[in-house]
Amino acid sequence: MGGHLLDREAVRAANLAFYQSFEDNDLDVMYSLWEHTERATCVHPGWPMLRGWPQIAASWFTLLTNGGQTQFIVTNEVIEIVGDVAWVTCDENVLTDASGATVAALNMFVLSDSQWRIATHIGSQVRG
Amino acid sequence: MGGHLLDREAVRAANLAFYQSFEDNDLDVMYSLWEHTERATCVHPGWPMLRGWPQIAASWFTLLTNGGQTQFIVTNEVIEIVGDVAWVTCDENVLTDASGATVAALNMFVLSDSQWRIATHIGSQVRG
Repeated sequence: MGGHLLDREAVRAANLAFYQSFEDNDLDVMYSLWEHTERATCVHPGWPMLRGWPQIAASWFTLLTNGGQTQFIVTNEVIEIVGDVAWVTCDENVLTDASGATVAALNMFVLSDSQWRIATHIGSQVRG
Repeated sequence: MGGHLLDREAVRAANLAFYQSFEDNDLDVMYSLWEHTERATCVHPGWPMLRGWPQIAASWFTLLTNGGQTQFIVTNEVIEIVGDVAWVTCDENVLTDASGATVAALNMFVLSDSQWRIATHIGSQVRG
């Protein structure tokens, strides 16, 4: 349970904004939450590892502009902070137009210029 | 590409030891590589999020003492370090007695008492 209270609230808000922007298909907000760096990585369930901001941005463009609707009920959210790195583990209970699934997820944030930005997102679908 | 060279080598060695101990079914080494903490988390592909060392230790006991043999060819390993936190992203090309798969993985290490120990492992199977 490291980290200052204000940092924990900032990380919690950023993690919520991540799922909210996905629900809202809001590409601008989604883009603003991420590090636009080479080291950024992203794994959507079933997808290969995406490396670097251009690949990751392209994936969000595909996911958020396909006309679909995705709803998240995020549970068991736990925030840990060590120095300028924070990570959130949670269960994404995902409802799409077509189906539902549970995804075990880790979102890692790095503090830079007073902002906690996503450096890594990885989701692993739980077998039903 | 943050972090001192010696830290990078220590993290690389710990990440290799993680996969080697899995291949060798060496529970003692596997246990020694992890933080034995409440905050530790682990997601095996298809499994739900495991939280805290007792749950994680039990999962490794199950996986490493079932008489099976798992071989890992780890590719695209990238190490990042920010302060006392390191994370390794890689592709696990996994061969078991029964099947093969590719898993996109993230291993996060935290430096404590001069040792980089695994705080989080999460693997997400790539759809073939």
